[in-house]
This record gives sequence, structure tokens and C-alpha cells, in this order.
Amino acid sequence: MKLIRFGERGKEKPGILINGERYDCSARFNDWDRAFFQHGGLNLLQKLVEEEGDKLPKVNPHERWASPVARPGAIVCAGLNYADHAKEANMPVPSEPIIFTKATNTLSGPYDPVVIPPGSTKTDYEIELAIVLGKNALYLKDEAAAYECIAGYSIANDVSEREFQLERGGQWVKGKSSPGFTPMGPFMAFRDDIAESRNMDLQLTVNNSIRQIGNTQTMIFHPSSLIWYISQYMQLEAGDVILTGTPPGVGMGMNPPQYLENGDKVELTIEGLGTQKQVFVDYTS
Amino acid sequence: MKLIRFGERGKEKPGILINGERYDCSARFNDWDRAFFQHGGLNLLQKLVEEEGDKLPKVNPHERWASPVARPGAIVCAGLNYADHAKEANMPVPSEPIIFTKATNTLSGPYDPVVIPPGSTKTDYEIELAIVLGKNALYLKDEAAAYECIAGYSIANDVSEREFQLERGGQWVKGKSSPGFTPMGPFMAFRDDIAESRNMDLQLTVNNSIRQIGNTQTMIFHPSSLIWYISQYMQLEAGDVILTGTPPGVGMGMNPPQYLENGDKVELTIEGLGTQKQVFVDYTS
Repeated sequence: MKLIRFGERGKEKPGILINGERYDCSARFNDWDRAFFQHGGLNLLQKLVEEEGDKLPKVNPHERWASPVARPGAIVCAGLNYADHAKEANMPVPSEPIIFTKATNTLSGPYDPVVIPPGSTKTDYEIELAIVLGKNALYLKDEAAAYECIAGYSIANDVSEREFQLERGGQWVKGKSSPGFTPMGPFMAFRDDIAESRNMDLQLTVNNSIRQIGNTQTMIFHPSSLIWYISQYMQLEAGDVILTGTPPGVGMGMNPPQYLENGDKVELTIEGLGTQKQVFVDYTS
Repeated sequence: MKLIRFGERGKEKPGILINGERYDCSARFNDWDRAFFQHGGLNLLQKLVEEEGDKLPKVNPHERWASPVARPGAIVCAGLNYADHAKEANMPVPSEPIIFTKATNTLSGPYDPVVIPPGSTKTDYEIELAIVLGKNALYLKDEAAAYECIAGYSIANDVSEREFQLERGGQWVKGKSSPGFTPMGPFMAFRDDIAESRNMDLQLTVNNSIRQIGNTQTMIFHPSSLIWYISQYMQLEAGDVILTGTPPGVGMGMNPPQYLENGDKVELTIEGLGTQKQVFVDYTS
């Protein structure tokens, strides 16, 4: 069983995915949001599925796939968290995690088109393992406590405008926060259903050509380590989303750099977490 | 008339301030939040006040003062936005705004004690003019359109841990997001009640000694300019809070630097926006 959400933007409903079929849980749950995770919703859901399972109403296959969790209180990201990616970005391997944030309203569905912002010439992709928190986390004692805060895993595309991020002064958030810049999904797998989160293959293609290939083995700071670390600096909350960095192969790192253009098709796959796909399109006012 | 909120943490209610007296609006409005601002709530409120004014129930004077608006979708900040402050921070005057964010759960009441995070030796203050947005804002055409997005003004203390912000690698957000690091209030004044937002005196004292003195005249990028700029990089939303930078006099800029310690009393005043006060206290688990 996996968490999904469906329906048009702004009216998304919570559901689950069982054996490839989507079921509607909106009669029982408001949303997969902070309140749900914080108040033991996952246990209630597990019980519902055991009792009613595939008797729940099915979701119409034509319904849009939304991000698998609701807009969180924070999207916190680790930068340069794969040694090889730091190298291609010409930045030193960090001695402690590099933390930045994305605007939380960037979250979008796994198959939604992504709009290239007006004036952008350097829109880039980044495949990332996304973590969803099941509990609040502040000043955690150790990585074991951090592991207990993980509700599950998903795929995210940490879409980045490199000029806005790196060439316009100041902080990265400016190049990470354009509308629709965080496609997430197609589903959230539960932590305990992913046996080997430290050994998952990642792959991203652009127009069917492989651009990024990696494995979570080569992460510098693993999910529990990141969550422990971030919790020393801010109050993480149930439902928050952590993006854990990207392996080598981003467009900025190619020689010459190759950025996304109108009509480009980007496809992201992580072992055990399915595949998401987006078409990148020019902005039209 | 000014917006206020009151009540214990997590159970805040919306109210208004008229001639120094707090009135409870919770029978008519849920909260001063995104939905309120986005759906013309300010006009409804204005009408309510004209019709019922001081017939609304009074707030018990013992009730805690909360931040004057609800937790927003984003707290977006301008760094080094007073020329003199950039100089004292040993950083160049920026040619375009330096944008960073704070975790939105840092928002706290104007008189709440502020906890110095565990391990901190460089907790610092920053008095700032805070803007509350009354509308969504994306790809605004010009500063006039940006001005129309301003609902009102308040005071914020952009509390900052300088080691976390500047000496630990990566991005500023880490030193800006500890719990309680954004005291805001005591109230939000409406835009049209502040005749001269470009000529407001700011003053911050620590234990009654003046540390920061400034005037919004010396801002590099004024509120409308900042809002226009930020809207080119992210979808701002009604209820969002923009912090507009701090004038000279932060503890980091003193020789030698002087950071906040257990028991220090910090008092912040902006012309027309009242005074907020916090006691800084050591963390106890």
C-alpha cells in the first residue's frame, strides 16, 4: 500500500495505491497533511485498509495524479549531497550538510507540465530521493531517533534555475522556488516497505537520453543523518518534505551546459518508487 | 484600527486594536490568514468595525499577545538592505536584493521570550519593518502593482544565530530558523494608515542601551521594489510576510561583537508601529 493524492489543483483528495489501482480515501481522511501524520493517521489508515482494502471506491483513471502528500510546512533540501555532483558543480565536498529551502507552493504532481519561468535560460533538473516526515523533530538525540521520524519515501524533481540560483547574488532559494518547481510522486512508499534506502538506483532521462545515473550508496549524508542535522537548526514538523540531494549529471555540469527547453520530456525513476514524467513548457502569460 | 491576535500558542484568535483596547473578532472570523486576506476579508472587517466597532467583546488584558497575523505560507527576507548595515557586516552593497527565507514556524508573539538555541554563542537581533501581503503576487509588472499587494506593516525581530548562519557552510536559512526566531507585532497597521512608510524611524535597545537606530529612508530596496522583485522568482501569497532588512547596529557588527545572553531584554520600536519586547533565555530541555 502506498499514499497517493488525486484531483485537480487546489481540490486534491487523499487516496492509496494497491497493486497499481488507486482508491479514494477522502470519505475517511481530509488529506495526507501535517494533522494526519501528527495524530497517528498512518495507523488508522493501515487499519482501514486491513478491514476494507479494495472495497474502497476506485479513483477514475482519468483523474490527475497530485503530489502524494499535501503542501507541507517546509521543503528542506540538502545541497551537494552526492560527492560526484559536488565535483561536477565545481564546489567542494561539504564537511557538513548544506541546507536550503524551496517555497512550499512549488509542490506539484508527478506528471504536471513544468513551466519554464519568464526570462529563464538555465532551467535544470535534479532527481532526488524525497523523505516525508511522520513526526515533529527538534534537537533529536541521534540518527536512530531521526530514523523513527521517517514516514516514507518518494521521488522529487528539484527543478532549479541556475542563473537565478547562482548568478544573481545572494541565496539559492531564488532559483529553486518558481511555481511548479517541485514535482513529487507518483506515490509515497512507507519506510518499512523500502528495505534498502541506502542502496537505491536513481535515473533521469531527458527526451529518452540518460542524463543522471546514481545510487543512494554514494550520498554523503544519509536521510537519518540529514534529519538529525536539520533538527538542530529548526523545528521540523510531521508532513514536512526533505530532499536529499542529487547525483551527477545535471545540465549545468555538462560541457557545454545543456538546459531544458520548451517541449523537453524529463523522466525520473527511483528503484521501488516508480517513475515520474514532466514536459517542460515555455511560460505564457 | 489595527490587526492583532491573542491567546495561547496554537489557539490564537483574531482581534483588532482600537484606541489601545483589544477586541475579539473570533465570532466572525477564523483567523487573519491567507484565506482571510485572499477573499476580501479586510473589507468585511472594515464594515464590521464601522457597524459594531467597540461593541465587540473586549479581550481580557491578561491574554497573551500573539503575532498579528497567522503563520504564513512564506517568510521572505531581504538581506543587507540598508547600506550602512552591509558595511558593518563587511559585505558589499548588493546590486539586486539578497533574498532568503526563514522557517514559517519561527513566527512568535511580540512579547514571547526567545529561547537561545542549544550550543549557540552568537544569537543576535535585527529590527525590521515587516510587510504583510494582502494579495497573491507573481510576475508583477511594476512597483505600483506591488504597492497594491501590501495589506499592512508591523515590526519583526529577525533573530539570527551568526555561527549557524555564516560559519557552518551553506545557506543562511540555518541561522534564521530556530524556534521563536521571528517575534512579530504587537499589531499590523493598515497600509493606508501609514502615510510615510519610506520615512519611519527604527530603534532597538538591549537592556535599555540603544544598539540600532535607523530610518527606512536609507533602505536600498523599498517595500514595493522588494515585492516586485521577489514576485519574479516565486509565487507570493496573501498573508505572506516580507522582512525588509535591518539598519546598522547588530551585535555582530560591534567591536568586539556582543551577542545576546540569558536574561537580556531586547526592545524594538518603529514609528507608528508600537514597541515589542523580548527576554532572551537559555534553552532548557
